[in-house]
Amino acid sequence: MDQVMALVTNAPSGGAISRRVTITGEPGDILLKPLYTGICGTDRGIIAGKLPFAYNPVGYDFLVLGHESICSVVESDVSGFKAGDLVVPMVRRPGKCLNCAAGRQDNCSDGDKHEAGITGKHGFMREQFRESSRYVVRVGDSSLSRTGVLTEPTKNVMKLFEVFSVISGRSIYPTPDYSFQGKHAWIIGTGSEGFLFSFMAREQGFDTFMTNRHSVDEGRLGIMDQFGINFVDYSRDFDTAVKDIDLLIDTSGDPTTILRFTQRVRQNGIVFLFGTNGRAPDGAMSGVMVDHLVEKNITIAGSVDGAKRHYEQAVSYISKWTHEHPRAMSALITNEEPASSVDPFKRGNSNGIKTIISWK
Amino acid sequence: MDQVMALVTNAPSGGAISRRVTITGEPGDILLKPLYTGICGTDRGIIAGKLPFAYNPVGYDFLVLGHESICSVVESDVSGFKAGDLVVPMVRRPGKCLNCAAGRQDNCSDGDKHEAGITGKHGFMREQFRESSRYVVRVGDSSLSRTGVLTEPTKNVMKLFEVFSVISGRSIYPTPDYSFQGKHAWIIGTGSEGFLFSFMAREQGFDTFMTNRHSVDEGRLGIMDQFGINFVDYSRDFDTAVKDIDLLIDTSGDPTTILRFTQRVRQNGIVFLFGTNGRAPDGAMSGVMVDHLVEKNITIAGSVDGAKRHYEQAVSYISKWTHEHPRAMSALITNEEPASSVDPFKRGNSNGIKTIISWK
Amino acid sequence: MDQVMALVTNAPSGGAISRRVTITGEPGDILLKPLYTGICGTDRGIIAGKLPFAYNPVGYDFLVLGHESICSVVESDVSGFKAGDLVVPMVRRPGKCLNCAAGRQDNCSDGDKHEAGITGKHGFMREQFRESSRYVVRVGDSSLSRTGVLTEPTKNVMKLFEVFSVISGRSIYPTPDYSFQGKHAWIIGTGSEGFLFSFMAREQGFDTFMTNRHSVDEGRLGIMDQFGINFVDYSRDFDTAVKDIDLLIDTSGDPTTILRFTQRVRQNGIVFLFGTNGRAPDGAMSGVMVDHLVEKNITIAGSVDGAKRHYEQAVSYISKWTHEHPRAMSALITNEEPASSVDPFKRGNSNGIKTIISWK
Amino acid sequence: MDQVMALVTNAPSGGAISRRVTITGEPGDILLKPLYTGICGTDRGIIAGKLPFAYNPVGYDFLVLGHESICSVVESDVSGFKAGDLVVPMVRRPGKCLNCAAGRQDNCSDGDKHEAGITGKHGFMREQFRESSRYVVRVGDSSLSRTGVLTEPTKNVMKLFEVFSVISGRSIYPTPDYSFQGKHAWIIGTGSEGFLFSFMAREQGFDTFMTNRHSVDEGRLGIMDQFGINFVDYSRDFDTAVKDIDLLIDTSGDPTTILRFTQRVRQNGIVFLFGTNGRAPDGAMSGVMVDHLVEKNITIAGSVDGAKRHYEQAVSYISKWTHEHPRAMSALITNEEPASSVDPFKRGNSNGIKTIISWK
Repeated sequence: MDQVMALVTNAPSGGAISRRVTITGEPGDILLKPLYTGICGTDRGIIAGKLPFAYNPVGYDFLVLGHESICSVVESDVSGFKAGDLVVPMVRRPGKCLNCAAGRQDNCSDGDKHEAGITGKHGFMREQFRESSRYVVRVGDSSLSRTGVLTEPTKNVMKLFEVFSVISGRSIYPTPDYSFQGKHAWIIGTGSEGFLFSFMAREQGFDTFMTNRHSVDEGRLGIMDQFGINFVDYSRDFDTAVKDIDLLIDTSGDPTTILRFTQRVRQNGIVFLFGTNGRAPDGAMSGVMVDHLVEKNITIAGSVDGAKRHYEQAVSYISKWTHEHPRAMSALITNEEPASSVDPFKRGNSNGIKTIISWK
Repeated sequence: MDQVMALVTNAPSGGAISRRVTITGEPGDILLKPLYTGICGTDRGIIAGKLPFAYNPVGYDFLVLGHESICSVVESDVSGFKAGDLVVPMVRRPGKCLNCAAGRQDNCSDGDKHEAGITGKHGFMREQFRESSRYVVRVGDSSLSRTGVLTEPTKNVMKLFEVFSVISGRSIYPTPDYSFQGKHAWIIGTGSEGFLFSFMAREQGFDTFMTNRHSVDEGRLGIMDQFGINFVDYSRDFDTAVKDIDLLIDTSGDPTTILRFTQRVRQNGIVFLFGTNGRAPDGAMSGVMVDHLVEKNITIAGSVDGAKRHYEQAVSYISKWTHEHPRAMSALITNEEPASSVDPFKRGNSNGIKTIISWK
Repeated sequence: MDQVMALVTNAPSGGAISRRVTITGEPGDILLKPLYTGICGTDRGIIAGKLPFAYNPVGYDFLVLGHESICSVVESDVSGFKAGDLVVPMVRRPGKCLNCAAGRQDNCSDGDKHEAGITGKHGFMREQFRESSRYVVRVGDSSLSRTGVLTEPTKNVMKLFEVFSVISGRSIYPTPDYSFQGKHAWIIGTGSEGFLFSFMAREQGFDTFMTNRHSVDEGRLGIMDQFGINFVDYSRDFDTAVKDIDLLIDTSGDPTTILRFTQRVRQNGIVFLFGTNGRAPDGAMSGVMVDHLVEKNITIAGSVDGAKRHYEQAVSYISKWTHEHPRAMSALITNEEPASSVDPFKRGNSNGIKTIISWK
Repeated sequence: MDQVMALVTNAPSGGAISRRVTITGEPGDILLKPLYTGICGTDRGIIAGKLPFAYNPVGYDFLVLGHESICSVVESDVSGFKAGDLVVPMVRRPGKCLNCAAGRQDNCSDGDKHEAGITGKHGFMREQFRESSRYVVRVGDSSLSRTGVLTEPTKNVMKLFEVFSVISGRSIYPTPDYSFQGKHAWIIGTGSEGFLFSFMAREQGFDTFMTNRHSVDEGRLGIMDQFGINFVDYSRDFDTAVKDIDLLIDTSGDPTTILRFTQRVRQNGIVFLFGTNGRAPDGAMSGVMVDHLVEKNITIAGSVDGAKRHYEQAVSYISKWTHEHPRAMSALITNEEPASSVDPFKRGNSNGIKTIISWK
């Protein structure tokens, strides 16, 4: 393959530059070109050299960045795809365990998998790349050429709610109306992933609360308003406002915050851990907390990544949300940058929600 | 009803005395006489005045103790029971929530339930008492007139493993042989409940390890040996011996210990919290621990009590274990005391496994 | 309440007339006015006097028809609803069994439930009626004031696919990509319910086939085309075209057809029975068919009605489909009639898909 | 390997002779000697030449019979087994599909598996044979050296009840006591498999009925009595006795009988098809039957074979039953024949329950 422009780092040391690279021998029956790629906390962590588990592909002294993307098919050697089709490539590639054999590399049992743009596989922030169609998800709705970049973060949401439906089966979880109306979902964090979790909690019928330790800007409040989501600044209002939680989803990774909210989880409630922050200070887990978890049959569940069906469901819900709340979905993308610059990585997220890079 | 001898406390202040009591108006279509009652940590906590949630029944200034028992039917107003039948009365009685309506007061959604010998309902440590047959479980195997006293603690085990089978469905949990052989279950604590959890882990096929922070006596090692259970004194051997945990069951209630073992739980592993100790010192939950739970899809689940079917399953497994390992099952009962004395409550458990009181 | 115009029958004798009725004493905290009501086979069966299980409410010598509707709130005594809101009232009302107590009157264990417009409860084909808000489902999307009439038939679809997700857990059902792409769903029947089942099969990712014993008109083919559904006229093409079925959904109720297609169901496949036709001729079930079901672990599941959450999901998917395929969704409604006429009931469906009655 | 005496057939033509055979190249790290092998309807079908799907292993013009056995380890190349251990070899060996990869060859998705003594793999009716320890299940209880021969038929029971627990999750199935007491299980057929299904229904707490179209002998009634099972001769008593079925398990394979009993299945009931008889006359499936299945949410599920964990559970329950009801378990084995004779195959089962062959 010829040289292409790419945004690369040197994992796990970090850094980010835009330069021409030549990558040969990648398997694939389909040639893709990104339209947009998204930047998330993992990308910023890699560039800052803070994620020691990141590593370059074998035989390379660099790693092409990027695992969130919406792409266009350039050419395809397989039926079912044709030039111009919108698609999203999957991040994680299977190892040899049984979960991986069943397409569940998100549940990989032995850690023997790879992640594009993170661990041993080049990512999607490059002009074009070959890909195996097995790991490419169709986006049938042509109006998703921009918001479709949210597919990858949304697949995490779909997997988490699948796990929710499994775990909630341990007791009678819905209301006596067999509904989630009147049940309370709380989402800690007001980044893009927090919004996507909240949208899905609304879809399930939960009374839904986003929360953070500070107030949020009008843009965020506007999005919440369109989806019928409440906001609580818990630095002001914890004691009176935070209560009766049936479903808690954390995107902060902060143990102290997680434990504080978990105290307010009701009988048969479920706490999901999604956010990670290995450098967060310790939280104090008390004997009373253990008692609370036991006596009320509360479950805490870590959940990472998602499988192909979760990508497909993500596409479906992004399509739904984009049609129903076009302004809110558009407002999730607060920054769009050209592919020529590495500034957005360095700048941090400041107060934006999602920064994307245009490759068009 | 006439006066009967009973072991009573004054909840939540505590204390324990043997005295004659008159209790009137208890609903019930069946008259029971305990053969044996068991003493557990909850009983000791109530007597020590350490469990503030305990309370006397309405209209009484005392609480009859006891929630573990094997009883004999004295007389029955309903078909299906006759004098001399072995039975076990249930501890928890339903409130008005939907889980209670479905017979799942162990999953009570609003806390509106009662527990015999603990919260607002007289217990079973008395010469005889009336009971509603709805809350009475048959023990068909007449050889269980003594080990049947373990039914109540064993129903916790059956409920927990039911929850295990629900939660483990979130990924492919068994080995590629669709077996649990080669999967590792660790049980923290070497009291009677720890043994019962371990027996069931063996039934499921797990390589099973009991562990404590000290060595254990020959009696315990003998029981473990008969059931094929390993023992690890983790005060000596944590770093090399404790690893690759797929199922962790805690009976200690100690946050520091729970978190320490949770670090060694593998991908898709499940941690069950059963033991409680509200006065245990705080454990430090790190950001790295949150990361571990997330990236490996680990679940932590509190589990308390059990429903009628779990009592029935408990009877079935105690029957099985009593036939297959009669010496081990008998050895679980290390102390038998007469009903006339309140000494066993005061003495504490010293080094015994299960203390029972004979009412024969 | 004052007199209102209504479409009524005399169950189970049948007939249909438009006349003024006075109905008093219906419980309800909310007053509704239908915008549209839909006609289905059950309505036609009642009118023809062919459904012996239909009966008038106690104290009435008539039954107001209608269980499919999209309504507007006229006035509400409860918060959460206000005049002008779009809503859909539920058909089935709970009896006293445990499934009913859990909001699952669709799974009523003892038959002690009522159905609006069918069994002992007046239906929705009247100018206005009081309703209990507990049985009223919100339609947040104001663009559904017409296609929302499909909510009631679509809730059957949502319940059936919930049962599918339960039953398919008996083996590893998805492809090794953890997807349903490449799995084959077949839907027997090309009426409105057949289309709604097919739309959901497409949402799940199935390669989807609608089939009938005759060819279908251009209108139907156009709808299928927009949703990516294939059509097979099985009277011409059974032997070569019908094969490798993983999910079969019948809307015909015809035993012979069901059994014929079931022969082509693959290992671990699931057959859903939804359509009913008590007067259909017998089908011959062979010993070879039993062998086929056993050796291939095939499941056949009857499924009727749905619960409140299924109505909510139905609203959500109708919203999605109405935005994504507005022409197709509109084309499902082939006839719109004024409320003043009972002709549409008498005419039969001829070749249309869904006939609705306008109450505006 | 040297010559060994074996009972062989020529599949699918049939016949049965006892002769010396030399079988080379079978993979295996463990050498087994059968103590007893069991004869079932499949064996008789093969010998009669009635099972066209049976075939000889590649390179052989004969097939060693036998898939039910209890064996003793002669020598082992792997740890975990030693000479003298009791074991049961599994029947079915995996193909290449995902279910097979997960140890679920009982749910093989493409038919690409082998069965010892039936399809392309030599069976266990020979003096000794090499086996892969992966397909060998330990029998820890030394008292099962005879009744352990029932492990293979019992593993079918364990798998079926696992499927039951999955499917019954589609509604609230237990009583409001969360128990199966008062729920009715009916088992069609009074052969050994019928008994084993009935024993497990009793374990689950069902009121359990075995039924056949004729009366049964005292031996059978005695076994039923010990397990608390009722018997109904449905040729005399169908209309009054057969009703309110919640769980129906068929071992007859006869469509007419299956459909007749299915008419009496209640709401949310489950029908399991286990028996097969490809030559049974057709049964008439009416439109009313389809209506019954739909309106009452009834499920019919075929179920075949079982996985390694089901063998392990089978060993566990046979141990339990053998200790609790030793006479009943022993009475299931009505005929014991020497390995030197092929008469038992030819004789048919006459009125016995299970015929076994002694290899000691």
